[in-house]
Amino acid sequence: MSRAYVHGYDERESVRLQDQASSVLELLHADTRYPPGSAVLEAGCGTGAQTVTLARNNPEVRFTSIDISAASLAEAKARVQAAGLTNVTFRQQDVFKLPSESFDHVFVCFLLEHLARPLEALRALKAVLKPGGTITVFEGDHGSTYFHPDNALAHRAVQCLVDLQKQAGGNANIGRQLYPLLREAGYGAVRVSPRMVYVDASKPKLVDSFTRKTFAAMIDGVREPAIQAGMMSAADFDAGIRALHRAAEDDGVFCYTFFKGVALRETKS
Amino acid sequence: MSRAYVHGYDERESVRLQDQASSVLELLHADTRYPPGSAVLEAGCGTGAQTVTLARNNPEVRFTSIDISAASLAEAKARVQAAGLTNVTFRQQDVFKLPSESFDHVFVCFLLEHLARPLEALRALKAVLKPGGTITVFEGDHGSTYFHPDNALAHRAVQCLVDLQKQAGGNANIGRQLYPLLREAGYGAVRVSPRMVYVDASKPKLVDSFTRKTFAAMIDGVREPAIQAGMMSAADFDAGIRALHRAAEDDGVFCYTFFKGVALRETKS
Repeated sequence: MSRAYVHGYDERESVRLQDQASSVLELLHADTRYPPGSAVLEAGCGTGAQTVTLARNNPEVRFTSIDISAASLAEAKARVQAAGLTNVTFRQQDVFKLPSESFDHVFVCFLLEHLARPLEALRALKAVLKPGGTITVFEGDHGSTYFHPDNALAHRAVQCLVDLQKQAGGNANIGRQLYPLLREAGYGAVRVSPRMVYVDASKPKLVDSFTRKTFAAMIDGVREPAIQAGMMSAADFDAGIRALHRAAEDDGVFCYTFFKGVALRETKS
Repeated sequence: MSRAYVHGYDERESVRLQDQASSVLELLHADTRYPPGSAVLEAGCGTGAQTVTLARNNPEVRFTSIDISAASLAEAKARVQAAGLTNVTFRQQDVFKLPSESFDHVFVCFLLEHLARPLEALRALKAVLKPGGTITVFEGDHGSTYFHPDNALAHRAVQCLVDLQKQAGGNANIGRQLYPLLREAGYGAVRVSPRMVYVDASKPKLVDSFTRKTFAAMIDGVREPAIQAGMMSAADFDAGIRALHRAAEDDGVFCYTFFKGVALRETKS
């Protein structure tokens, strides 16, 4: 475990997934495995989208999945139950107010992007991590988005989400920062591995599930606040969304990169 | 060979390289292998930067490396001789005026980005490729560039190169287009694999060789024409270059993506 885990099999397997993954969940999580018997904290589980994959891939691991939102937790609980999984305990908890518990490992996915103080969150998580344990962090980076045919309005529509998230105190381009953040938070053996999602028509399932139904839908989700804030006109925003869907056609290409960071709470710290 | 080659070992190996490659040449070419005895055309060999790696990795393959520039060819010849390689024949030749010869495979690296008619070039190369043979194409994509700390002037300096290359008839963002280009040129079994270069301080060799000495140096290379064309002021351009070097510091991160396309000249075409 520990160093061997951080640098070993995990890494080698991870990159192999890139061309093979048929879904983004698979691309991100298929190589996140913990030793049987471990106690793992999932901080910011939201509605449990990752929890189900994690718990299913690691049936002999006990997960404690926390979130600040009771509504999200209820949804997560229902999902995990529907999947027939019994190795997850849910708790309503603030990542900045964790009780003094020790976990073997910590898992965080799409949480830091929403926090005004991501560094403090990483430090708080280190405090509940046993020495020798790992933290695994996944974040996207909207600044990694490009596509063919290129289109300026589509880039501006993406930027609306980045700007709105910034106004809310978050950072939609945080993926590229995992390495310096984990280092500054005092973790050791920091290793960041990009997970680029490259989508062309040879992967029709991914075109539909990612380009259209995940990415374009997510950007379209900020249509109203972006227009109300005067960031773009309705006509321009809609043209931007159409251009994202254009990249999902037969001669289109769409690129986005997630980042996975794995680091160690070292014994001497 | 053929389909098995296109979809088999080649792919699986390629993604494994991502985290392991200590140099970009290794990342790009380590999995480009041809069966012993093949005759391979390298179109647009330039000064032979790829030729040496290719010929060394495929000692039993006969390469015919062509370029339109006599000066580049002389340099390529000297490089290949200095490396003690004897399996390369050089010829001064225009990719649009190829003699009616048949090659088992075709290899192209960083050529299409400079051509006003990349599609025609791909068709011309198909005409000298034996049915069942593969074409391998590598191109970068400057629109895939991002870094931490982010900096608007650095992005503008990169855009100067993109705009200058466009004025010269080329396309510095062509990497993302390999899939539609190869399909439109009539190739079959098109498979594109991104080669993302992710650089943080855990890879000091790559920070120096790629972020500083390849990428920042390349952008700095258009300083004079960019300033003369009024694209940026000298002060702004220099601040942009400094920001690229800033991304090479200990808490910096730099990302760039190359694309490798492999496709087949199908028997029925």
